[in-house]
Formats: sequence, C-alpha cells, structure tokens
Amino acid sequence: MNINASIIGASGYTGLELINILSLHPNVTLKYLVSRSNSGKKVADLYPSLYALGNKEFSHPSVEEIAKQSDVVFLALPHGESASFAGKLYDLGVKVIDLSADFRYDSLELYENTYGITHPRKDLNDKAVYGLCEIYRNNIKKARLVANPGCYTTCSILPLYPLLKEGIIKSNSIIIDAKSGISGAGRKAKTDYIFCETSENFKAYSLTNHRHTSEIEEKLSIAANRPITLSFSPHLLPIKRGILCTIYAALSNINADIETIYNDFYKNEPFVKILPETLLPEIKNVAGSNDIQIGFIKDKRLNRLIIVSCLDNLIKGASGQAAQNMNIMFGMEETAALKFSARYI
Amino acid sequence: MNINASIIGASGYTGLELINILSLHPNVTLKYLVSRSNSGKKVADLYPSLYALGNKEFSHPSVEEIAKQSDVVFLALPHGESASFAGKLYDLGVKVIDLSADFRYDSLELYENTYGITHPRKDLNDKAVYGLCEIYRNNIKKARLVANPGCYTTCSILPLYPLLKEGIIKSNSIIIDAKSGISGAGRKAKTDYIFCETSENFKAYSLTNHRHTSEIEEKLSIAANRPITLSFSPHLLPIKRGILCTIYAALSNINADIETIYNDFYKNEPFVKILPETLLPEIKNVAGSNDIQIGFIKDKRLNRLIIVSCLDNLIKGASGQAAQNMNIMFGMEETAALKFSARYI
Amino acid sequence: MNINASIIGASGYTGLELINILSLHPNVTLKYLVSRSNSGKKVADLYPSLYALGNKEFSHPSVEEIAKQSDVVFLALPHGESASFAGKLYDLGVKVIDLSADFRYDSLELYENTYGITHPRKDLNDKAVYGLCEIYRNNIKKARLVANPGCYTTCSILPLYPLLKEGIIKSNSIIIDAKSGISGAGRKAKTDYIFCETSENFKAYSLTNHRHTSEIEEKLSIAANRPITLSFSPHLLPIKRGILCTIYAALSNINADIETIYNDFYKNEPFVKILPETLLPEIKNVAGSNDIQIGFIKDKRLNRLIIVSCLDNLIKGASGQAAQNMNIMFGMEETAALKFSARYI
Amino acid sequence: MNINASIIGASGYTGLELINILSLHPNVTLKYLVSRSNSGKKVADLYPSLYALGNKEFSHPSVEEIAKQSDVVFLALPHGESASFAGKLYDLGVKVIDLSADFRYDSLELYENTYGITHPRKDLNDKAVYGLCEIYRNNIKKARLVANPGCYTTCSILPLYPLLKEGIIKSNSIIIDAKSGISGAGRKAKTDYIFCETSENFKAYSLTNHRHTSEIEEKLSIAANRPITLSFSPHLLPIKRGILCTIYAALSNINADIETIYNDFYKNEPFVKILPETLLPEIKNVAGSNDIQIGFIKDKRLNRLIIVSCLDNLIKGASGQAAQNMNIMFGMEETAALKFSARYI
Repeated sequence: MNINASIIGASGYTGLELINILSLHPNVTLKYLVSRSNSGKKVADLYPSLYALGNKEFSHPSVEEIAKQSDVVFLALPHGESASFAGKLYDLGVKVIDLSADFRYDSLELYENTYGITHPRKDLNDKAVYGLCEIYRNNIKKARLVANPGCYTTCSILPLYPLLKEGIIKSNSIIIDAKSGISGAGRKAKTDYIFCETSENFKAYSLTNHRHTSEIEEKLSIAANRPITLSFSPHLLPIKRGILCTIYAALSNINADIETIYNDFYKNEPFVKILPETLLPEIKNVAGSNDIQIGFIKDKRLNRLIIVSCLDNLIKGASGQAAQNMNIMFGMEETAALKFSARYI
Repeated sequence: MNINASIIGASGYTGLELINILSLHPNVTLKYLVSRSNSGKKVADLYPSLYALGNKEFSHPSVEEIAKQSDVVFLALPHGESASFAGKLYDLGVKVIDLSADFRYDSLELYENTYGITHPRKDLNDKAVYGLCEIYRNNIKKARLVANPGCYTTCSILPLYPLLKEGIIKSNSIIIDAKSGISGAGRKAKTDYIFCETSENFKAYSLTNHRHTSEIEEKLSIAANRPITLSFSPHLLPIKRGILCTIYAALSNINADIETIYNDFYKNEPFVKILPETLLPEIKNVAGSNDIQIGFIKDKRLNRLIIVSCLDNLIKGASGQAAQNMNIMFGMEETAALKFSARYI
Repeated sequence: MNINASIIGASGYTGLELINILSLHPNVTLKYLVSRSNSGKKVADLYPSLYALGNKEFSHPSVEEIAKQSDVVFLALPHGESASFAGKLYDLGVKVIDLSADFRYDSLELYENTYGITHPRKDLNDKAVYGLCEIYRNNIKKARLVANPGCYTTCSILPLYPLLKEGIIKSNSIIIDAKSGISGAGRKAKTDYIFCETSENFKAYSLTNHRHTSEIEEKLSIAANRPITLSFSPHLLPIKRGILCTIYAALSNINADIETIYNDFYKNEPFVKILPETLLPEIKNVAGSNDIQIGFIKDKRLNRLIIVSCLDNLIKGASGQAAQNMNIMFGMEETAALKFSARYI
Repeated sequence: MNINASIIGASGYTGLELINILSLHPNVTLKYLVSRSNSGKKVADLYPSLYALGNKEFSHPSVEEIAKQSDVVFLALPHGESASFAGKLYDLGVKVIDLSADFRYDSLELYENTYGITHPRKDLNDKAVYGLCEIYRNNIKKARLVANPGCYTTCSILPLYPLLKEGIIKSNSIIIDAKSGISGAGRKAKTDYIFCETSENFKAYSLTNHRHTSEIEEKLSIAANRPITLSFSPHLLPIKRGILCTIYAALSNINADIETIYNDFYKNEPFVKILPETLLPEIKNVAGSNDIQIGFIKDKRLNRLIIVSCLDNLIKGASGQAAQNMNIMFGMEETAALKFSARYI
C-alpha cells in the first residue's frame, strides 16, 4: 500500500516531527508541505536537519489541489482556522487528521466556551472521532476526520481512564500537576521563551484556567459515566521535549489492584508501558518516542493514589499520535514508522 | 561588632554558599573552613570562583581549637554525624548553627523514626531552636544552638503556616508538589546526577516517603494546633538552584482573605514577598537571593486554594537562612550580607 | 560621597545588571531608570527579582531633566542612537558612561565603516576615553565621557595587550576563537534565541566579519605599535552568561616568560586573575563576578601560545566594567559594589 | 540476509546507541549484550527507554560462546583491554568492530607513546582497517577487523582530508578548535561531570596533549603525503551530544575552489553534507543522526580558510559509524538502520 500525505502548517515543530516520521514511513509519500509564510523556501533551508529531503519545498497550493493529490491531510494550524480547512478537505473526500482542538469536543458548547470561538463547521462535529488511539481505536478505523488530542490531554487521560471506568476514584479528588517542555509553546518568537528567560527557571502558568482542563474533564466524565471536575496545573520545564504529570486521586477502595486494572486495560498496547508499583517513569525514558509510560504508588497512610505519567509532547502528544491515527485509519501496521526508542540521552 | 565564624563541612555546596555570604559580611571574620577530605588544599583551588580568598586553606583542627577561635560554628555535615560535633561545640560554649536535620524535631521519636538513627545527644534537643527565622525569631535571639530547616521544608512551611494558624484549611487536604534543582543533592559523584542523565530530564522521587515530610508535618501541626498529615512529592528539575512548590489545599472557608492573612503575618519581613492574587512566582525571581516569594490563586469552582512558593535551596533553603540566623543570634542587622537580589538571568 | 546615577535604556539585560550593582553601591542613589517602552511600569513588575526596589518605576523624562538630577548617566542604547544622547548629556555637563560602540574607536573612519553609520557627534570623539579600566585608568580618572568596551573585546584585549606590548607575538598569527552565552544577544524576541533553538545546540556566527574585530584590532595595534590583524570567530554557547576566548598566537620567542609578563602587567589589579601556566579558567569561575581570569599554555612542539580567557559578558564585559569606570571617574573605591564572587554554581 | 551481532561493553552510552541502531536494523539480530558489571540485569531496567527489548538481559558469556553465536562483535571497551578481546575473537573467525583506539594507528610506536600501553596484539595491527567509512570503504569491505575512529577524529579528518590531499593547505598552519558535548566522557560517576559542575559552564581541557591529536595527525599526514602537525584544542560544551570543530588553516592558494574540491570528493556520500560557502552547520542539525555537515568560509583579508564541521559524537563519532562499517563489511545497504534525521529539537 502507498498513500500520499500532505501537511498544512508544516513549518512549525509539529510539522517538523510529522515530516521526520512520515519520511521514514514505508507506505507514505510526502506530498505537499504547506506553509504560507515559508512558501517557496526549501524545507532543508529552514530545518537543515532535514537535508535528506533535498530540494523539497514548502508550498501553498489551493485546498482543491491538496485534496486532489493527497489521501490524507494533517492540519497543524491554530485553533479556529483549522476547522475551515478540515471542513473543505472533508467535503472534497480526503481523510483529515486535525491536530488542533477544533473537533476534539463532544460538546460544541464546551468547545466554544473554552476557546471563545464560534465553531465554523458545527455540522462536522459528529463526524469527527477523538483520536486517542488506545481508547477510540475502533471508531478511528472508520473515521474520515480525526481530532488528534492535546499533549497534556493524552498524558492525563490515558493514566486516569481505566481507573475512572473501574469506579475506584473518589469524585472531585483529582489533581493533575503537569510539567511540560518548552516545545509545547511551538516555534514562537516571544521573549517569554528565549533561552535567558527559561533556562535555569521553572514556573506554573494558567493555573485553574488552562484550556486542556475541559477537554480532559469531558473525556474522563465519559469514562466515569458521571461528571468529573479536576484541577489541572501546567508548569514550564527548562527542557525541549516531554511532559510529566503527577496525578493525585483519593481512592474509594484502597485495596483496588491498580496494576492489574492497568495491565488488563492496556495489554497488547505497543505504546503504553505500565511500570510495576513504585517504579516511576522519567521524561528521558519517553522523549523522542511515541511511548507513554505510567507508574503509580499508593499512599496507604493518606488513602491517596499518586500516578506519574510521561510522554513526548511532540510525538505521542502530537505528531506521533497523528501518524498512529493515520496507520489505524488506513489499516496499516499501527506501529509503522513509530518503532524508534526514546532518546534517554 | 566583629565575630569569628567557622564552618565544619566547608567544601560542599552549602559550604561554598556560606563562604560566599560570610566573606562579604561586614561583621564577620572567616576563621576555620573545616574539611577532612580537603584539608591542606587552598579553597580557591577547589572553587576558583573564590580566588579573592587568596591562600586561605581548608583545615582540620580539633573541635577544641575551633571552639576557642570561633564565636559561631556552622555545621554542614551529614545527619547523625552533625549532632556529635554540635554537642561538643555547645558544651564548649560556642554558638552553633546546625544545617543538618539532627536538632530540627520537637519529637526525638519522630526524628529517630525518620532518619533511622539513635540520636547521640538527646539531652540537647530541648535547647535547640528551630531556625525558621520568620516564625521562631524570638527564640532564635536567645538560642545557643539553632537547627537550620531543610530547603523543601522552608519552602513548604512558610506559605502554609499562616493559613493553618488561621484555621482555614481542611484537614488532610494538603498536597505539596515540590520541584527542586539538582544542587539539593549536593556535590556527589553519582551517575544519577551527571549532566547526561539529568539535562533534558525530569522525574519524581521518594514519593510518599521523603524525610522532609515528617519535618513539615510536625511544624504545621504546631501551627494548626491539630495533627496535620499531607502528601509531599519531590521532583528533580534540570536546573542548578531553586525550589518551587505547588501546594493544593481545600479551603474550609472559600471567602477567606488569603492576601490579607499573608500580608498581616509577613508584614515587615525583609525576605518574604507575597504576590497579589493570581500573580505567581518563578524560580529565576528568587534564585541567588535569600528571598522566598509566595503567590496564590483560589479555584472557586473546586473550592481549592493553590499556592506557589519559590526560594533558592542553597540560600534561603540553607546557607542564607543560616546566616540570617547568625545575624539574629548576635543582634546584628538581620539582612547584613543578605541584601543581594535574585539572579533573574 | 554620594552621587546620583541614571540609566538610559534601563530595561534590557545590561540595564538589569547595572540596577543590581548600583543599588548595592554605598555611594550611589539610583535616579532615573529610563525606558521608552516600559515607561510607567514598575521595575519589579518587569524584573520581579528586583522587588526590593519597591514602587520604583521606569520613566521617560527629558534629557535636560535627567542631566539636572544626575551626576552620571549610563547609556545602554543601540549603536548610533547612543551618541546623540551622550552628546547632549555631555553638553549639559553630566558625566557619561556609554555602553554602546559609538565612542570606542580612535578612528572615526573605522567606526563608520564597521557600523555603517555616519557618526552624529564627531566633535566629541577626542574627548571620549576608552573605558578598559586596567589599561586606560589614568585617562578615565579625568574623563567626562567614557566609552565602555564590548564584551568580546574586553575578553580579547586584556590577555593580548601585555604580550603585544612586549613584542613577543608574531605578526598576523593571532586567532581568537570566542564563545559567548546567549545574554550577549540581549533580551530580544527572536526565534533564533528561543530555548528550543538554542539549548543542546552550538554554532559559529559572523565568522570573518564580526564588528568587534575592528575594535580589538585597533586597540591591539596601539599596544603593539604596529598594525595587528587577526581572526575573530564568535560562537553561541547554550548558557546564559559568560565568554571564553581560546586565543592562538605564534611566539617570536618561545622562551618568553609569559607568566612574569602577565603578573608584572596586572599586579595589584583586583579584577584580573592570572592563573599559573597550564591551569585554565572556566566560565563558572567568573560568571556573576566582575573578574577576568586568564590562563595559558605554551605548545613548544608547535611554537604556539594558547591563551584561555574568561569573563561574564554582562558584568566585566558590560555593566560591571561600567560601574568600575564610574568608581574611577568619581574617585571612589574602584571595587565598590563589585566585590561579589563568581557563581560557580 | 540476517546476521547475529553482539556487543561487548554494552551498558555504556556507545552500547546504548548501538542497541538503539541495531535493534531497528532489518538484517541484524542482537545476540549477546555483554556487560560484566550489569550481567543478569535486564537492559530495560538500566535504560527504561529500551523497554521494547522486553526481558533481554545483559550477560557475560565466554569469548568462545560469543564467537560461536555471532557473525560480528562490537567492542565498546577501554583502550588496552579491547585489543585482547578483539584478538581472541579474530582468532575465532568472527568479524570485529573495535570502538577503542587499539587498532587505529598505522604506527604501533605512535599508539604506544600516545596511550602509554604495550600493545597486546601487535601481530594483528596490519590486519586492522581504519574504519573511516568515506575514506577507507574499499578496505573495510574486505576487513575482518575494523578500528572505528574516534569522535573528534572523524569530525577533524573528514573536513581536512580532501584539502590536504589536494595540497592547498600550508604546512603546520592547522588549528582545530573542537567543542564536544558531555556524553563524550561516557557514563562516569565523576564530580567533574555532574549537572551543577557542567551546566552553565564551558571550559577547555587537554590543550596541546589530547590523545586524538596523534590519530588525526597520522591520518592527515597520509592524505598530505608529508608530515602534518597541528593544534587540537578540545572544549566541553554543556550539551549531551554533538561535536563542532572550528578549523583554521592558511591556504597556499587563496583561489582554490574549496566547494568543488569537497563536492567532488564527497559526491554520493549519503552521510556527508557540504554546505554552500558561508553557510555554517550547527550541532542541532546533526545531533541524533549519522550525518556530518561541513561548512567553510574564506577570509581573503587574512588568507585563511575557516571550516566548521559538526557531527553527533555518539553516532557518526562512534556507534553510527560502527554500524555503517558493519553494513559495508557484510555487503548490506550502507545506510540500513541509519537513515533517521537529526533531532533539531
């Protein structure tokens, strides 16, 4: 099998990762790398790490042209802007993997409240499948429009989903203390992200009001079959890649066998690694890979469960998961082009 | 006024910081810099940043000689070992500031359980004053033996103390998610701390069983006048210096005026900066200084208070606070040699 | 003695460092902190590390008002713009320390060629003294206008000056391979300087055409009393502060006693540390201080001298040297407010 | 084709990289991962990034057993120790790729002087081929014992070889100012390499006497067909991976067409990227890949050529080149398992 893939918004960091992954994929030909601001520039001039692409250029063709030449289009565009492109491509019959938040929500109202935007393609929201591969695989197989989850979201939902489904977590006890590398902010020329302002620093931001909170709550409420509210507290780590979430939850049953619940739920999952109790994951063990690692520890003294989950925000939290979704949508081997190990160093 | 100060365990990072601070102090002469392993070596050969010390050497005199030549002795020694030195120096009439945990606990039993050590100088435990300057200043003034608090401890107790005293925090709701720079581990040749294992990494460690937990709980229980238990979760940041604690607590009264409570409690404190609600401190704003900055935000939706506190683990969390204790003990200006600003860059 | 000091261009990193230094100076009152873009904003809101400044604000008064209230004005402005301000302030009788390149050159032609600017105050160029304290101290004492040297320049000239004066270096053999921390680029919101583009990276830039080349060549030609040309190759280190220059030169006399030449030339200099042969300085030994450290090694096999010099680009390479110039100009203790040690950690 | 590969000294960083590469190789089965100190431990317990290896363990079988089960053995052992293993394996008929220095030298005398060791297998030195793939490919094809070049060496020889062969560089004018990431020092628990001693630091080391100097000189003398001596000055960068060399050389002919010389010499080389004149490589463009990038600039004013070369010390500088050698030795596709792009971020 061979398919043609294009990327709209190809010149940012998620674009770069998608290019990295797709150019090694045995069944994929990279077609259009769309970037308005870099149109006409060689990809290898912007990212000299990609010199193997030779003279391949960023371009800016019409949506129709992109649709005509592509079997699948990845959208790495800002929220709001993405839905319009996704809609047009969908209408033209191409499969779409949207890395923005535009089709992530079951509730359009929640989306609009969270992002302060009137959704431009409300009609398509029901067609979209939430692309959290391990949970929605069966729907993704048949989907023509996949909404790729957020990075924090993936790192939060995967460790909590099985436990909430199992009903062993007390209502409203969940706190997610999340720490992310700076690539989560993309390739923005902002003083806040220059080296001298970020290195040797650490800070919290968007406490109580980060947008991923509502996305996490919506999906976990489905898992729990009751409304879940929680604290989500992001922090900025002085590293390039990786997210680590330290998750606190009160157990309704302190004797629940967490390890078995996890292993049953995630058995055979190639990208989910459950660690034995008390062993904890670290960012270097997942950065550069499509893996999520999950560790946990019960604090019997306080009847509290502490979970630590880790992934690479640009891979499992964005472009890797997007490629995994593509693999599922096209019936290709799910791990194709995604088998590389984490960096460690 | 001029006093002579010596440091036992002078060649580690807390020693280095003490030397840095004390050598700029207008009322202090550095006497003995004691280091068994580096005895006879020039200080400036080990730490060439200190070349202004000229030919000053590490030495290893007898405790009696140290006592004779010193008005105050700082102990930067491992737990257990420190108490014996402290005891001898105390017996010889010298004022002692012990940076170890040996005299930090009111309860000897809690100390012995936490550190797995039989305390060698139980007789002195009642004489020791806990050197958290802002809380115990009046006792420190009269103390001959001060137990300098731990770094995590200072960053945890100062933001929680006034609120627990005020009785506005629900029992057993406190979670301290703490993140520390690597200098907290000292100057140890351990694979875990080499650059390639720590840079671009982040991890949790000692979840549910870090030793500072019991120190924090004991002091906060005094503040609350009831037993406080809490989760304390340390993490390792890829930075040299600084601790940031994100603290979660359920409010018994969501309308409590946190800012006023803080400002009343810490008014006139030169090293405590309370930020206006929703403004949050960052490590770069305190690293390199003796300051602690405290910010907070109420999450009314979840009836939860989130506090963020920051300090430099080697200064306010160790050597700076030790010097502040010395200033208080000797009736010198409390900010002497401690007025330098944080680094920012 | 007490003098009033103002800073124009106070909100950048050199401004921040000047504020840090001057606010600890026993003889200086900070008057105006001038910043057009941040006028009206509290200094501590931009740099929360400076909260000890209380409500002190950036402002934007007229040059006349600044002159009236100040004994000395520091200019931390872009090249070209600075000369006009310097000129007006000079005309109004205030002492000026200009951190830009505008008055650094003996040859106006060389300045204009290097910076591509018509000098707006050619008339003042002869009045200006080059503020390399250790070399021009006697002239600085009497100066009303001091041109503070560049960071790379200071790190290059100080180690080479005595050897060229002594005539032991072969013509045109000098190569300066220089490496600088990112704060050298200032506080600019540029993609090139964001964390993800700089951390774990290293690169050369401006090879063969960096502007500091001509400044270094002019001053060294004076030392040598013949025209000196050299290669100056800057690189960007993934650190905040510090410059290290590795300098190569062919010796005309391999038996020349380098250590003695250095020690004779720099004896009694409080901020210059000559290391014994083969011992080499490192950035951590000078970062955060006003020191320059110089080490060297003779390669007898190749008849080549290798010198390694280090300083903090924001302190000895900018604001610290500026304060040192002020101390000299006003007859204050030269080390006042500059005695702090390097960071090491 | 399928071959069995074993690694002796598998638990260090070069071992980790070899495992990473070989486990993705379509024609290779990993057989023994030999580590005396970690024998019996799961690989994924030491390096949790490798959890895809499942229960695969480090082991410590006899050399005979390793030879019996392996078609090729990689040696990642200390100098001196390696030659004995290599010799035994060679005698047993297995192909050997030795990552140590033991068989790198044509001159045994130069090796023994440089490493201060009596070579234990002098008899094999003539059988060994220097594994610099781009230069010695034809000999490597037939070799049974390949001496993999050093990291600094590869980064120095590849850019200089064509120019020396062409005879356009003046004798004894070469200076290589080299900067390496910390992984070059391996996984050693040494105070010098802990985060607090290395981050925000930069230093030179082993000036005039680094061991790679003689290896570089020997190979370049062959290229030039006359004795080449040069300065090689290594520095330690606060990054994990990557080497950048800034190379200075006087041109005997300033009009030499460097770009054409390079492009002719390296045309069709999959891992060598020559940049157009004045464009310079950066470490992030090669780190994580098997690429070397080479840029250059002529300084006509000084008749000097400046070359900048970059590679990943653990990949092209060690394990990647070792795998490339294996591919050549076994007639497999030379780029197999080595096509991954550099990290960039």
